[in-house]
Amino acid sequence: MTDKRSGRAADRTEAIMRTTLELGQELGYAKLSIEAVAARAGAGKHTIYRRWPSKGALFLDSLLSLHTPDLDYPDTGDVVADLRTQIHAAVDLLSGPPLGPLYQALVVEAQHDPQVAAALNERFITPQADKTVARLKSARDQGQLSPDFDLDLAMAILSGPLYYQFLIAREPLTHAYVDRVVEALLLGMRPRH
Amino acid sequence: MTDKRSGRAADRTEAIMRTTLELGQELGYAKLSIEAVAARAGAGKHTIYRRWPSKGALFLDSLLSLHTPDLDYPDTGDVVADLRTQIHAAVDLLSGPPLGPLYQALVVEAQHDPQVAAALNERFITPQADKTVARLKSARDQGQLSPDFDLDLAMAILSGPLYYQFLIAREPLTHAYVDRVVEALLLGMRPRH
Repeated sequence: MTDKRSGRAADRTEAIMRTTLELGQELGYAKLSIEAVAARAGAGKHTIYRRWPSKGALFLDSLLSLHTPDLDYPDTGDVVADLRTQIHAAVDLLSGPPLGPLYQALVVEAQHDPQVAAALNERFITPQADKTVARLKSARDQGQLSPDFDLDLAMAILSGPLYYQFLIAREPLTHAYVDRVVEALLLGMRPRH
Repeated sequence: MTDKRSGRAADRTEAIMRTTLELGQELGYAKLSIEAVAARAGAGKHTIYRRWPSKGALFLDSLLSLHTPDLDYPDTGDVVADLRTQIHAAVDLLSGPPLGPLYQALVVEAQHDPQVAAALNERFITPQADKTVARLKSARDQGQLSPDFDLDLAMAILSGPLYYQFLIAREPLTHAYVDRVVEALLLGMRPRH
Protein backbone atom coordinates (compact mmCIF):
# COMPACT_ATOMS: atom_id res chain seq x y z
CA MET A 1 0.00 0.00 0.00
CA THR A 2 2.77 2.40 0.98
CA ASP A 3 4.73 1.28 -2.09
CA LYS A 4 1.79 1.95 -4.35
CA ARG A 5 1.31 5.37 -2.84
CA SER A 6 4.98 6.38 -3.17
CA GLY A 7 4.91 4.92 -6.69
CA ARG A 8 2.02 7.23 -7.55
CA ALA A 9 3.84 10.20 -6.00
CA ALA A 10 6.91 9.42 -8.11
CA ASP A 11 4.71 9.18 -11.22
CA ARG A 12 3.17 12.56 -10.42
CA THR A 13 6.59 14.12 -9.84
CA GLU A 14 7.77 12.80 -13.17
CA ALA A 15 4.60 14.01 -14.91
CA ILE A 16 5.17 17.51 -13.51
CA MET A 17 8.77 17.53 -14.72
CA ARG A 18 7.85 16.27 -18.20
CA THR A 19 5.16 18.93 -18.44
CA THR A 20 7.68 21.59 -17.38
CA LEU A 21 10.04 20.68 -20.22
CA GLU A 22 7.17 20.44 -22.74
CA LEU A 23 5.74 23.82 -21.77
CA GLY A 24 9.21 25.38 -21.63
CA GLN A 25 9.82 24.29 -25.21
CA GLU A 26 6.44 25.62 -26.32
CA LEU A 27 6.53 28.96 -24.50
CA GLY A 28 10.19 29.73 -23.87
CA TYR A 29 11.68 30.20 -20.43
CA ALA A 30 10.37 33.74 -19.85
CA LYS A 31 6.73 32.71 -20.31
CA LEU A 32 6.96 29.40 -18.47
CA SER A 33 5.05 29.58 -15.17
CA ILE A 34 4.35 27.23 -12.29
CA GLU A 35 0.62 28.04 -12.77
CA ALA A 36 0.69 26.80 -16.36
CA VAL A 37 2.59 23.65 -15.39
CA ALA A 38 0.08 22.94 -12.60
CA ALA A 39 -2.87 23.41 -14.97
CA ARG A 40 -1.53 21.15 -17.69
CA ALA A 41 -0.19 18.46 -15.35
CA GLY A 42 -3.45 18.44 -13.38
CA ALA A 43 -1.53 19.07 -10.16
CA GLY A 44 -2.12 21.60 -7.41
CA LYS A 45 0.09 24.72 -7.45
CA HIS A 46 0.88 24.06 -3.78
CA THR A 47 2.01 20.53 -4.55
CA ILE A 48 4.56 22.00 -6.93
CA TYR A 49 5.66 24.83 -4.60
CA ARG A 50 6.10 22.34 -1.73
CA ARG A 51 8.81 20.62 -3.72
CA TRP A 52 10.26 23.44 -5.83
CA PRO A 53 10.61 26.97 -4.44
CA SER A 54 10.79 28.67 -7.85
CA LYS A 55 10.35 28.21 -11.57
CA GLY A 56 14.14 28.06 -11.90
CA ALA A 57 14.42 25.21 -9.38
CA LEU A 58 11.58 23.30 -11.07
CA PHE A 59 13.02 23.74 -14.54
CA LEU A 60 16.54 22.75 -13.47
CA ASP A 61 15.28 19.65 -11.68
CA SER A 62 13.14 18.68 -14.68
CA LEU A 63 16.03 19.02 -17.10
CA LEU A 64 18.41 17.06 -14.93
CA SER A 65 16.16 14.35 -13.54
CA LEU A 66 15.06 13.39 -17.02
CA HIS A 67 18.43 13.72 -18.75
CA THR A 68 21.22 13.24 -16.21
CA PRO A 69 22.10 9.69 -17.38
CA ASP A 70 22.98 11.17 -20.79
CA LEU A 71 25.72 13.18 -19.10
CA ASP A 72 27.59 10.34 -17.39
CA TYR A 73 31.13 9.62 -18.55
CA PRO A 74 31.73 6.37 -20.36
CA ASP A 75 34.89 4.47 -19.40
CA THR A 76 36.23 2.70 -22.46
CA GLY A 77 39.80 2.96 -21.18
CA ASP A 78 40.59 5.79 -23.62
CA VAL A 79 40.17 9.06 -21.70
CA VAL A 80 40.30 11.30 -24.76
CA ALA A 81 37.57 9.38 -26.54
CA ASP A 82 35.49 9.37 -23.36
CA LEU A 83 35.91 13.10 -22.79
CA ARG A 84 34.80 13.76 -26.35
CA THR A 85 31.77 11.49 -26.04
CA GLN A 86 30.63 13.10 -22.81
CA ILE A 87 31.21 16.69 -23.90
CA HIS A 88 29.47 16.09 -27.24
CA ALA A 89 26.46 14.75 -25.30
CA ALA A 90 26.48 17.77 -22.97
CA VAL A 91 26.73 20.17 -25.91
CA ASP A 92 23.90 18.42 -27.76
CA LEU A 93 21.67 18.56 -24.68
CA LEU A 94 22.53 21.99 -23.28
CA SER A 95 23.24 24.14 -26.29
CA GLY A 96 21.24 22.68 -29.17
CA PRO A 97 17.50 22.63 -29.74
CA PRO A 98 15.14 22.00 -28.08
CA LEU A 99 16.57 22.46 -24.57
CA GLY A 100 19.59 24.68 -25.27
CA PRO A 101 17.79 28.05 -25.18
CA LEU A 102 16.09 26.99 -21.94
CA TYR A 103 19.39 26.06 -20.31
CA GLN A 104 20.93 29.34 -21.45
CA ALA A 105 17.96 31.25 -19.97
CA LEU A 106 18.49 29.38 -16.71
CA VAL A 107 22.17 30.40 -16.58
CA VAL A 108 21.09 34.01 -17.11
CA GLU A 109 18.42 33.72 -14.40
CA ALA A 110 21.11 32.44 -12.02
CA GLN A 111 22.84 35.82 -12.45
CA HIS A 112 19.76 37.54 -11.01
CA ASP A 113 18.49 34.95 -8.52
CA PRO A 114 20.86 33.55 -5.87
CA GLN A 115 18.51 30.61 -5.16
CA VAL A 116 18.61 29.51 -8.79
CA ALA A 117 22.39 30.00 -8.79
CA ALA A 118 22.72 27.83 -5.69
CA ALA A 119 20.45 25.14 -7.18
CA LEU A 120 22.33 25.20 -10.50
CA ASN A 121 25.59 24.61 -8.68
CA GLU A 122 24.30 22.07 -6.22
CA ARG A 123 22.17 20.07 -8.66
CA PHE A 124 24.31 20.29 -11.80
CA ILE A 125 27.68 22.01 -11.79
CA THR A 126 29.14 20.33 -8.69
CA PRO A 127 27.95 16.79 -9.56
CA GLN A 128 29.27 17.21 -13.11
CA ALA A 129 32.59 18.49 -11.77
CA ASP A 130 32.79 15.46 -9.47
CA LYS A 131 32.13 13.05 -12.36
CA THR A 132 34.72 14.82 -14.52
CA VAL A 133 37.36 14.71 -11.80
CA ALA A 134 36.65 11.02 -11.11
CA ARG A 135 37.04 10.06 -14.80
CA LEU A 136 40.23 12.14 -15.18
CA LYS A 137 41.68 10.83 -11.93
CA SER A 138 41.33 7.27 -13.13
CA ALA A 139 43.04 8.28 -16.42
CA ARG A 140 45.81 10.00 -14.50
CA ASP A 141 46.33 6.91 -12.37
CA GLN A 142 46.73 4.93 -15.61
CA GLY A 143 49.36 7.36 -16.91
CA GLN A 144 47.11 8.84 -19.63
CA LEU A 145 47.26 12.32 -18.13
CA SER A 146 50.10 14.35 -16.67
CA PRO A 147 50.66 13.68 -12.96
CA ASP A 148 51.01 17.47 -12.59
CA PHE A 149 47.60 18.22 -14.09
CA ASP A 150 45.54 20.32 -11.67
CA LEU A 151 42.36 18.21 -11.43
CA ASP A 152 40.44 20.84 -9.44
CA LEU A 153 40.54 23.03 -12.53
CA ALA A 154 39.21 20.33 -14.84
CA MET A 155 35.62 21.61 -15.11
CA ALA A 156 36.66 25.25 -15.52
CA ILE A 157 39.21 24.42 -18.20
CA LEU A 158 37.07 21.95 -20.12
CA SER A 159 33.72 23.70 -19.97
CA GLY A 160 34.82 27.35 -19.52
CA PRO A 161 35.74 27.69 -23.23
CA LEU A 162 32.34 26.24 -24.17
CA TYR A 163 30.36 28.69 -22.01
CA TYR A 164 32.60 31.45 -23.40
CA GLN A 165 31.72 30.41 -26.94
CA PHE A 166 27.96 30.62 -26.53
CA LEU A 167 27.55 33.25 -23.78
CA ILE A 168 30.30 35.71 -24.64
CA ALA A 169 31.49 35.23 -28.24
CA ARG A 170 27.93 34.09 -29.13
CA GLU A 171 29.09 31.58 -31.67
CA PRO A 172 27.41 28.20 -32.09
CA LEU A 173 28.83 25.27 -30.15
CA THR A 174 29.74 22.44 -32.50
CA HIS A 175 31.40 19.07 -32.03
CA ALA A 176 34.28 20.34 -34.18
CA TYR A 177 34.84 23.26 -31.78
CA VAL A 178 34.72 20.94 -28.75
CA ASP A 179 37.28 18.64 -30.39
CA ARG A 180 39.65 21.55 -31.03
CA VAL A 181 39.33 22.70 -27.41
CA VAL A 182 40.03 19.20 -26.04
CA GLU A 183 43.02 18.82 -28.38
CA ALA A 184 44.47 22.21 -27.36
CA LEU A 185 44.04 21.42 -23.66
CA LEU A 186 45.71 18.05 -24.02
CA LEU A 187 48.64 19.55 -25.92
CA GLY A 188 49.16 22.59 -23.71
CA MET A 189 50.63 25.91 -24.84
CA ARG A 190 54.30 25.25 -24.05
CA PRO A 191 56.53 23.65 -26.64
CA ARG A 192 57.27 19.94 -26.06
CA HIS A 193 60.92 19.16 -26.65
CA MET B 1 37.92 77.26 -34.61
CA THR B 2 37.01 73.81 -35.90
CA ASP B 3 39.70 72.36 -33.62
CA LYS B 4 38.28 74.15 -30.63
CA ARG B 5 34.78 72.97 -31.46
CA SER B 6 35.80 69.32 -31.91
CA GLY B 7 37.89 69.64 -28.74
CA ARG B 8 34.79 70.76 -26.87
CA ALA B 9 32.79 67.88 -28.36
CA ALA B 10 35.46 65.42 -27.21
CA ASP B 11 35.40 66.96 -23.71
CA ARG B 12 31.62 66.60 -23.60
CA THR B 13 31.80 62.98 -24.79
CA GLU B 14 34.33 62.20 -22.08
CA ALA B 15 32.22 63.99 -19.46
CA ILE B 16 29.21 61.89 -20.45
CA MET B 17 31.21 58.67 -20.19
CA ARG B 18 32.70 59.62 -16.80
CA THR B 19 29.23 60.45 -15.52
CA THR B 20 27.95 57.10 -16.79
CA LEU B 21 30.55 55.19 -14.78
CA GLU B 22 30.01 57.37 -11.70
CA LEU B 23 26.24 56.94 -11.78
CA GLY B 24 26.56 53.23 -12.57
CA GLN B 25 28.67 52.78 -9.45
CA GLU B 26 26.21 54.77 -7.34
CA LEU B 27 22.98 53.22 -8.65
CA GLY B 28 23.94 49.82 -10.05
CA TYR B 29 23.39 48.83 -13.65
CA ALA B 30 19.65 48.16 -13.37
CA LYS B 31 18.87 51.69 -12.16
CA LEU B 32 21.30 53.49 -14.45
CA SER B 33 19.41 55.47 -17.11
CA ILE B 34 20.32 57.71 -20.01
CA GLU B 35 17.98 60.35 -18.53
CA ALA B 36 19.95 60.40 -15.28
CA VAL B 37 23.27 60.60 -17.13
CA ALA B 38 21.97 63.48 -19.28
CA ALA B 39 20.76 65.38 -16.21
CA ARG B 40 23.97 65.05 -14.25
CA ALA B 41 26.30 65.63 -17.22
CA GLY B 42 24.25 68.69 -18.29
CA ALA B 43 23.85 67.19 -21.77
CA GLY B 44 20.74 66.76 -23.91
CA LYS B 45 19.19 63.29 -23.98
CA HIS B 46 19.20 63.47 -27.78
CA THR B 47 22.92 64.25 -27.83
CA ILE B 48 23.48 60.99 -25.97
CA TYR B 49 21.08 58.92 -28.06
CA ARG B 50 22.66 60.26 -31.27
CA ARG B 51 25.89 58.58 -30.29
CA TRP B 52 24.73 55.60 -28.23
CA PRO B 53 21.58 53.66 -29.16
CA SER B 54 21.09 52.14 -25.70
CA LYS B 55 22.20 52.23 -22.09
CA GLY B 56 24.23 49.07 -22.75
CA ALA B 57 26.12 50.68 -25.63
CA LEU B 58 26.79 53.84 -23.57
CA PHE B 59 27.99 51.87 -20.56
CA LEU B 60 30.24 49.60 -22.59
CA ASP B 61 31.79 52.53 -24.43
CA SER B 62 32.34 54.41 -21.16
CA LEU B 63 34.05 51.46 -19.52
CA LEU B 64 36.29 50.78 -22.47
CA SER B 65 37.13 54.29 -23.63
CA LEU B 66 38.28 55.20 -20.15
CA HIS B 67 40.05 51.94 -19.30
CA THR B 68 41.17 50.21 -22.49
CA PRO B 69 44.86 51.18 -22.10
CA ASP B 70 44.91 49.17 -18.84
CA LEU B 71 44.12 46.06 -20.85
CA ASP B 72 46.99 46.21 -23.36
CA TYR B 73 49.58 43.44 -23.23
CA PRO B 74 53.05 44.37 -22.12
CA ASP B 75 55.92 42.83 -24.10
CA THR B 76 58.82 42.19 -21.76
CA GLY B 77 59.99 39.22 -23.84
CA ASP B 78 58.59 36.74 -21.29
CA VAL B 79 55.17 35.68 -22.56
CA VAL B 80 54.10 33.96 -19.34
CA ALA B 81 54.86 37.01 -17.22
CA ASP B 82 53.08 39.22 -19.77
CA LEU B 83 50.00 37.00 -19.89
CA ARG B 84 49.80 37.08 -16.10
CA THR B 85 50.19 40.86 -15.95
CA GLN B 86 47.47 41.44 -18.54
CA ILE B 87 45.00 38.93 -17.12
CA HIS B 88 45.51 40.24 -13.58
CA ALA B 89 44.71 43.74 -14.87
CA ALA B 90 41.59 42.48 -16.68
CA VAL B 91 40.43 40.61 -13.58
CA ASP B 92 41.01 43.64 -11.34
CA LEU B 93 39.07 45.87 -13.73
CA LEU B 94 36.23 43.57 -14.79
CA SER B 95 35.52 41.42 -11.79
CA GLY B 96 36.50 43.44 -8.73
CA PRO B 97 34.89 46.54 -7.26
CA PRO B 98 33.86 49.10 -8.35
CA LEU B 99 33.30 48.14 -12.00
CA GLY B 100 33.05 44.35 -11.77
CA PRO B 101 29.33 44.12 -10.93
CA LEU B 102 28.60 46.57 -13.76
CA TYR B 103 30.56 44.50 -16.28
CA GLN B 104 28.81 41.34 -15.10
CA ALA B 105 25.42 43.06 -15.52
CA LEU B 106 26.44 44.05 -19.04
CA VAL B 107 27.30 40.44 -19.94
CA VAL B 108 23.88 39.39 -18.65
CA GLU B 109 22.17 42.17 -20.61
CA ALA B 110 23.94 40.92 -23.74
CA GLN B 111 22.05 37.63 -23.29
CA HIS B 112 18.74 39.54 -23.66
CA ASP B 113 19.71 42.30 -26.10
CA PRO B 114 21.36 41.41 -29.42
CA GLN B 115 22.52 45.03 -29.94
CA VAL B 116 24.41 45.00 -26.65
CA ALA B 117 25.81 41.57 -27.51
CA ALA B 118 27.03 42.86 -30.87
CA ALA B 119 28.57 45.96 -29.27
CA LEU B 120 30.25 43.88 -26.55
CA ASN B 121 31.85 41.70 -29.18
CA GLU B 122 32.75 44.46 -31.58
CA ARG B 123 34.02 46.95 -29.00
CA PHE B 124 35.63 44.59 -26.49
CA ILE B 125 35.81 40.85 -27.09
CA THR B 126 37.16 40.93 -30.65
CA PRO B 127 39.78 43.65 -30.04
CA GLN B 128 40.96 41.83 -26.89
CA ALA B 129 41.13 38.55 -28.82
CA ASP B 130 43.20 40.29 -31.51
CA LYS B 131 45.63 41.68 -28.92
CA THR B 132 45.91 38.28 -27.24
CA VAL B 133 46.60 36.51 -30.52
CA ALA B 134 49.20 39.12 -31.52
CA ARG B 135 51.11 38.75 -28.24
CA LEU B 136 50.98 34.94 -28.37
CA LYS B 137 51.97 34.86 -32.04
CA SER B 138 55.09 36.84 -31.30
CA ALA B 139 55.89 34.42 -28.45
CA ARG B 140 55.28 31.45 -30.72
CA ASP B 141 57.60 32.94 -33.33
CA GLN B 142 60.26 33.16 -30.60
CA GLY B 143 59.80 29.51 -29.66
CA GLN B 144 58.16 30.25 -26.30
CA LEU B 145 54.91 28.51 -27.28
CA SER B 146 54.21 25.27 -29.09
CA PRO B 147 54.11 25.67 -32.90
CA ASP B 148 51.00 23.47 -32.79
CA PHE B 149 49.11 25.73 -30.40
CA ASP B 150 45.75 26.72 -31.92
CA LEU B 151 45.94 30.52 -31.63
CA ASP B 152 42.32 31.06 -32.68
CA LEU B 153 41.29 29.38 -29.44
CA ALA B 154 43.51 31.58 -27.27
CA MET B 155 40.79 33.90 -25.96
CA ALA B 156 38.33 31.07 -25.29
CA ILE B 157 40.91 28.97 -23.49
CA LEU B 158 42.45 31.80 -21.46
CA SER B 159 39.33 33.72 -20.52
CA GLY B 160 36.68 30.96 -20.69
CA PRO B 161 37.75 29.47 -17.33
CA LEU B 162 37.58 32.96 -15.79
CA TYR B 163 34.03 33.66 -17.01
CA TYR B 164 33.13 30.13 -15.85
CA GLN B 165 34.48 30.92 -12.39
CA PHE B 166 32.38 34.04 -11.81
CA LEU B 167 29.28 33.39 -13.98
CA ILE B 168 28.76 29.65 -13.47
CA ALA B 169 30.63 28.42 -10.40
CA ARG B 170 30.10 31.86 -8.83
CA GLU B 171 33.41 31.85 -7.04
CA PRO B 172 35.55 34.97 -6.69
CA LEU B 173 38.21 35.57 -9.32
CA THR B 174 41.61 35.94 -7.70
CA HIS B 175 45.14 36.37 -9.04
CA ALA B 176 45.97 32.97 -7.51
CA TYR B 177 43.19 31.33 -9.55
CA VAL B 178 44.32 33.07 -12.74
CA ASP B 179 47.88 31.88 -12.15
CA ARG B 180 46.73 28.28 -11.71
CA VAL B 181 44.71 28.46 -14.94
CA VAL B 182 47.64 29.89 -16.92
CA GLU B 183 49.98 27.24 -15.47
CA ALA B 184 47.58 24.39 -16.33
CA LEU B 185 47.11 25.69 -19.89
CA LEU B 186 50.84 25.99 -20.44
CA LEU B 187 51.45 22.48 -19.13
CA GLY B 188 48.59 20.74 -20.95
CA MET B 189 46.79 17.64 -19.76
CA ARG B 190 48.88 15.00 -21.54
CA PRO B 191 51.97 13.60 -19.85
CA ARG B 192 55.29 14.98 -21.13
CA HIS B 193 57.81 12.24 -21.57
